Amino acid sequence: MSRFLSERFAELEPYTPGEQPQDRVYIKLNTNESPYPPSPQVLEAVNREQVSLLNLYPDPTCHVLREKLADTYGVEAENVFVTNGSDDILNMAFMAFCDREHGIAFPDITYGFYSVYGQFHGVPCHVVPLTEDYRIHVPDYENIGMHIVIANPNAPTGIALPLNAIEKIVRSNPDHVIMIDEAYVDFGADSALSLVGRYENLLVIRTYSKSRSLAGARLGFAVGSRELIQDLERIKYCMNPYDVNRLTQIAGIACLESDTYYKTNAENVMQVREYTTKALKDRGFVVLPSNANFVFARKPGIEGEAIYQQLRAGGVLVRWFSGARIRDFVRITIGTKEQMDQLLSVLDNERS
Amino acid sequence: MSRFLSERFAELEPYTPGEQPQDRVYIKLNTNESPYPPSPQVLEAVNREQVSLLNLYPDPTCHVLREKLADTYGVEAENVFVTNGSDDILNMAFMAFCDREHGIAFPDITYGFYSVYGQFHGVPCHVVPLTEDYRIHVPDYENIGMHIVIANPNAPTGIALPLNAIEKIVRSNPDHVIMIDEAYVDFGADSALSLVGRYENLLVIRTYSKSRSLAGARLGFAVGSRELIQDLERIKYCMNPYDVNRLTQIAGIACLESDTYYKTNAENVMQVREYTTKALKDRGFVVLPSNANFVFARKPGIEGEAIYQQLRAGGVLVRWFSGARIRDFVRITIGTKEQMDQLLSVLDNERS
Repeated sequence: MSRFLSERFAELEPYTPGEQPQDRVYIKLNTNESPYPPSPQVLEAVNREQVSLLNLYPDPTCHVLREKLADTYGVEAENVFVTNGSDDILNMAFMAFCDREHGIAFPDITYGFYSVYGQFHGVPCHVVPLTEDYRIHVPDYENIGMHIVIANPNAPTGIALPLNAIEKIVRSNPDHVIMIDEAYVDFGADSALSLVGRYENLLVIRTYSKSRSLAGARLGFAVGSRELIQDLERIKYCMNPYDVNRLTQIAGIACLESDTYYKTNAENVMQVREYTTKALKDRGFVVLPSNANFVFARKPGIEGEAIYQQLRAGGVLVRWFSGARIRDFVRITIGTKEQMDQLLSVLDNERS
Repeated sequence: MSRFLSERFAELEPYTPGEQPQDRVYIKLNTNESPYPPSPQVLEAVNREQVSLLNLYPDPTCHVLREKLADTYGVEAENVFVTNGSDDILNMAFMAFCDREHGIAFPDITYGFYSVYGQFHGVPCHVVPLTEDYRIHVPDYENIGMHIVIANPNAPTGIALPLNAIEKIVRSNPDHVIMIDEAYVDFGADSALSLVGRYENLLVIRTYSKSRSLAGARLGFAVGSRELIQDLERIKYCMNPYDVNRLTQIAGIACLESDTYYKTNAENVMQVREYTTKALKDRGFVVLPSNANFVFARKPGIEGEAIYQQLRAGGVLVRWFSGARIRDFVRITIGTKEQMDQLLSVLDNERS
């Protein structure tokens, strides 16, 4: 820290991304990436001709991509906001709608960045404990009188809320923005996109990083009422108007032309998830019911950190969080069946 | 604007990027892009194999790129900060170092985003008028007692300060951060990079968008003391750790392996700038002395907006700013000689 840093940031605790070790090759099951490459259409679209145009700025309005997303999800382009990954949307939404007087509620166990954004922007955060079985208790959020951000499915639990539960929360808080972070929705949960036309206070946040195999390209989008999207655009044009680069816009467009490919991949992930869940349970693990591309699992009698270390020594990276209620767990990304078999084999070796 | 937007943003005036019209093909001399494509090394490096890896997150530390930049500029990797375009660095530096009690000074005529960041983050801005001939008056900034951001060369004037002038400003303000925005430095101005080791309060900000032909990829970097860079990293990890995508990191690395290509291009631009300056003067224009890849020019008796409109009607886009002291001017990006001849030809047709 320099002596020039503004005092308001002296106590800041930044987000810790999943590790990207360089010392050896691991089976990476720690950052919820897709095990599949982008679609053939994406590989064709991001070509040498497009690279040769990189001397030109991207379209800051992401016009073509937004139109295409709007068509895909049955809304208008003015309902769509595109950014350099969905973390950027969360950051901008915290800035746009929250302030000292307008706090935000979210679960105690959820995506770690929500509390980072709250702290970073000086926003009062109301942390709502999950139930004992790690579920969101919907009545806790009804008429709560502040903004809300909920990951659905939640992370790192993987547990999803049904659409009617989301709607109850949105409907009972008409004067506050309800952000539904659907990073993992394509792996078997209900999307709230169908509610956008009916609730001006609903912002649905999506990413291309998981089911769409584009974590490396950075692309997120939000769908909401025209007014909410205008607010986010205003924030973006005060920070970094050209935030989505040319090749990512092209990849994002091509991606939407290969829906079948991505649906098949998501179905594969879901099948491997069920296979992995059963295999872990057979080995004495407790596995939370997941609708995401990861499972959150613990083994009675062994600390989460020990499982993480054992797997790491065996060449398999998973994610361990030190938080009070979840330190017994590890979060395991669902890769290919072969990758999961290697994980299981490391676990079996450790048992013997 | 929605009724949910935080009141502090109600009066916000976002930055206006140069127009990107879709109605016809223009000669684009309005956003200071390079007229040359990225180097052959970049075209080779950003290939199908790399695109096929986009399912994986980028390295958030930009490890390889930072090492390479450090080698190129004679510093350590810990002195280098990499982001999604240099606007992101400016935004984060305003957040990190400025607050209500710690204001910032910059010229009245300069890159429009400085005042946007000031307003956006609630930072007191001390606006220092340029001299009558549009120059930065160095004594105005000595011992000024607040942070400073200066574009060198300045935009949209194109006028550069010599290194000893920059050093005077940096040395006389040891308790404040001096940001030198060198977006255009490769077109014939002195860089302050050589001062970084000696002044812990100096932050040099660079972009790949101009001389490096990568505006479409979004890549900026800053060089400064280890402590300043740590502060910026801290801010980045509270906002968007994965902000620089995979392909851009690869393009940025390849770019540094083709220095001769980019130097030749910059020399071409400088030659065409001198050619254009003379041709404009021959046509009665007043042209400020530019060390950038654009010229700032006015023609006595004609309003800047009228010149802009005439050129636009003739298929050539330049940039016009409505600010009080510069409304007579247009800013003309230096393209290829052929593009400049077309601009001159439109001007000549308008005269007849």
